[in-house]
Amino acid sequence: MSRTPPAGTVSGLFTDLYELTMMQGYFTLHHNPAVVFDMFFRRQPFGGGFAVFAGLAPLLENIAALKFSGEDIRYLAELGLFSAEFLDYLSRFKFSGDIYAVDEGTPVFPVEPLIRVHGSLLEVQLIESLLLNTVNFQSLIATKAARMYLASGGGIIAEFGMRRAHGRDGALSATRAAFIGGASSTSNTLAGREYGIPVKGTQAHSWIMSFASEKEAFAKYAEVYPQNCILLIDTYDTLQSGIKNAVEIGKKLKTRGIENIGVRLDSGDLEYLSKSVRHKLDKAGLKKARIVVSNDLNEEIIQQLVTRGAPIDIWGVGTNLVTAQGDPALTGVFKLAARSDGRKMFPAIKLSNNPHKTSNPGIKQVFRFFNGGGAAVADLMALDHEKPGTGGSRRFYHPLYEYKYFDLAEYGSVREMLLPRMKNGEITDRTLDLVHIREHTLRELGRLDDTYKRLINPHIYKVSLSESLKNLKFKLIAQTTQSL
Amino acid sequence: MSRTPPAGTVSGLFTDLYELTMMQGYFTLHHNPAVVFDMFFRRQPFGGGFAVFAGLAPLLENIAALKFSGEDIRYLAELGLFSAEFLDYLSRFKFSGDIYAVDEGTPVFPVEPLIRVHGSLLEVQLIESLLLNTVNFQSLIATKAARMYLASGGGIIAEFGMRRAHGRDGALSATRAAFIGGASSTSNTLAGREYGIPVKGTQAHSWIMSFASEKEAFAKYAEVYPQNCILLIDTYDTLQSGIKNAVEIGKKLKTRGIENIGVRLDSGDLEYLSKSVRHKLDKAGLKKARIVVSNDLNEEIIQQLVTRGAPIDIWGVGTNLVTAQGDPALTGVFKLAARSDGRKMFPAIKLSNNPHKTSNPGIKQVFRFFNGGGAAVADLMALDHEKPGTGGSRRFYHPLYEYKYFDLAEYGSVREMLLPRMKNGEITDRTLDLVHIREHTLRELGRLDDTYKRLINPHIYKVSLSESLKNLKFKLIAQTTQSL
Repeated sequence: MSRTPPAGTVSGLFTDLYELTMMQGYFTLHHNPAVVFDMFFRRQPFGGGFAVFAGLAPLLENIAALKFSGEDIRYLAELGLFSAEFLDYLSRFKFSGDIYAVDEGTPVFPVEPLIRVHGSLLEVQLIESLLLNTVNFQSLIATKAARMYLASGGGIIAEFGMRRAHGRDGALSATRAAFIGGASSTSNTLAGREYGIPVKGTQAHSWIMSFASEKEAFAKYAEVYPQNCILLIDTYDTLQSGIKNAVEIGKKLKTRGIENIGVRLDSGDLEYLSKSVRHKLDKAGLKKARIVVSNDLNEEIIQQLVTRGAPIDIWGVGTNLVTAQGDPALTGVFKLAARSDGRKMFPAIKLSNNPHKTSNPGIKQVFRFFNGGGAAVADLMALDHEKPGTGGSRRFYHPLYEYKYFDLAEYGSVREMLLPRMKNGEITDRTLDLVHIREHTLRELGRLDDTYKRLINPHIYKVSLSESLKNLKFKLIAQTTQSL
Repeated sequence: MSRTPPAGTVSGLFTDLYELTMMQGYFTLHHNPAVVFDMFFRRQPFGGGFAVFAGLAPLLENIAALKFSGEDIRYLAELGLFSAEFLDYLSRFKFSGDIYAVDEGTPVFPVEPLIRVHGSLLEVQLIESLLLNTVNFQSLIATKAARMYLASGGGIIAEFGMRRAHGRDGALSATRAAFIGGASSTSNTLAGREYGIPVKGTQAHSWIMSFASEKEAFAKYAEVYPQNCILLIDTYDTLQSGIKNAVEIGKKLKTRGIENIGVRLDSGDLEYLSKSVRHKLDKAGLKKARIVVSNDLNEEIIQQLVTRGAPIDIWGVGTNLVTAQGDPALTGVFKLAARSDGRKMFPAIKLSNNPHKTSNPGIKQVFRFFNGGGAAVADLMALDHEKPGTGGSRRFYHPLYEYKYFDLAEYGSVREMLLPRMKNGEITDRTLDLVHIREHTLRELGRLDDTYKRLINPHIYKVSLSESLKNLKFKLIAQTTQSL
């Protein structure tokens, strides 16, 4: 485990070295204009139609706590890359910028800014790596969890991925994000203490194997945990042995009035076995017994089992949730959108031979339009001074093709998405607790048409440019291209 | 960032809840036999022919530092699941078992034990989640790095994945493991301080965009870092603008005797661009200028570029290395291999309807056989008391098919793989520093025939059973099946 930083601080070294060398360059050149950076991503993960934004609260806390300890400064000095003046600057570093961001738990879409950071070039450059590390990962996992939650038809998702997660924080952050995306509980006890997430568990094969027989192992478990008796029935043979021994225990507990037993299936064909096991439980009068399943579940497998009517009560998901199986990175980026020449802010653009990678310039706001029924219909990126009110037609321009647009003739309401979170380096907006963020996620997902939520080949939610932003973008592209 | 535990300790809560509830069960039942557990994995990641074992040193340190703080105990008490007696036991918990493991950086293969833990059932159960979390992830990333290193022909792999890594420790642990697997440097400055790994970096698009023009941005960078001037040349247009401006800088620096400049390509076709750029650099007399490439590289892309003769000096890899693209989890498991009845140890076996998932019983050692030239030829799992010496023919039994075997008529040497690392909870074997572990990795990979190292569809390295172990396994399978 790494040496822990002084309590309540986060080491400024948690950054890519080039951020520090670029900072020193700016510092040496006295080149430290006011800037605005956007964080956004370009491609939905998992081939899906939405992502769930997560990681904001820890990010803000970490930025506010960012500092360079004496040990950090000594290490940098030893590298021989940095001047005494610059190290002195770092030793006094405190982030003093402003941050705007969408609410945690909000469904979000490619290209639109999710976080907008205002500050001096030096300080905004420093936080890039920390920001992307936190938000890319947590948004990825919240998205994966939401896909599983939706696939299960709003069922109970029990997360227990820690043994396959990417290190200690890979497990802790993943648990937090999975809960935001719709998981109901975790096996990670430390995450329970840290975040207040409900902790749940059943039993491992080692319990069964540590006794002389499965029958004895089940009986002993029921003796210790009569009220919380979920039995793992596949250690030797699910149908020949496990379910028979479990039914015996269930009947005994029922005579004492205890009916909330359960069985866990961790191998084999989960449709076949869950149906067989349900039948045997029901026949034995154990109609309230629950069936928990696990074993490399992902959203496609869950959806298939639901579609096939497998009688499953709880979905135990581990590896494929916390490692974001199928798409292990959200490739969010952090790009300069505007910079000052000392008097006023100018929009900045990054061109690319690939038009999809050309950035949207200027200080931007994102507006989400809802129809009269409260369903989200489209997002509009506009320049920050624009204020699309309710009522009246709006023109939505395609972000890549100048000539493509549509008019939104009617809508019910508009929501400004990027809200102030930090002012002069101080957190201004205490974010909601996790339970409320999770409720927000599920409510906002409910405001998205089902066609955007299909697991594969979904309907593409439109994110467009306002007329002013479209004009600015294509003007800057032309100017920059001519100047090359 | 999570609340930090007291300095030098690791919270016992970093475990799956079921480990704690099972422990309480054993505790309540006074069922705490001596046990032996094996950690092993069943399937090579990435479709490859080997994995690189990593994570041992941090694992041992974490196990030695594992304890339950007052805050941990209060949290567990609040859950209402645990008795005062058991919580008192936990508050005094210290791991007191023995651990054997293979050397970090060793190429390893499915089914063979990589770690063997001896202790009482309660304490061994507790460390399962921590052990798997640490070793699964680090071995996965060390393996991915080794694949990239081999694909590059032993080239320079610069790791800079922190912005896409799975949280803070996902980045730190991945950096450590990537270095073990063959990476040469990292961008993660904190990992540099923690582990002494060389830190390297170039510059971001934001540097270029923060100045009025690319030409000015390059000139300013060369002004500040003349001796370390690697220029990112794709912000506007690589061939129309970037390389021209870079050549201008390179020529000016050359007049001052500075020739170690470089350019970085971060988009576009890397074969076409690296060849074009090399040609332009050479024509301008900048033969020593290096070409660094990045942009979602993986081992297949690297191998293809090497095969095509792309003149690339440094491979910058991020996302696909630290997130283990293609296979984001090593599915290592921790299984009971033996338990005591109070007088002597008995082998334990877990059956499965799937024969691949039936465990190998008993307290085992792994022996690696090398030929006269020093190349590894096969591994043999044997019961711990067996001592295959050098010389003489050995019979190697297939782990699944009782009738299949081969005889190794000649070999040069045998190595015992599971060595003592911890005794009574104290670390006995100070593991090597990272530089030596990395050297061990590269040396041991060199002792594997190239056919085992092909990226896809590799030659399968044989891991076999000794005759005694084979006999024990199939006897126990028969006994257990009959008793169901």
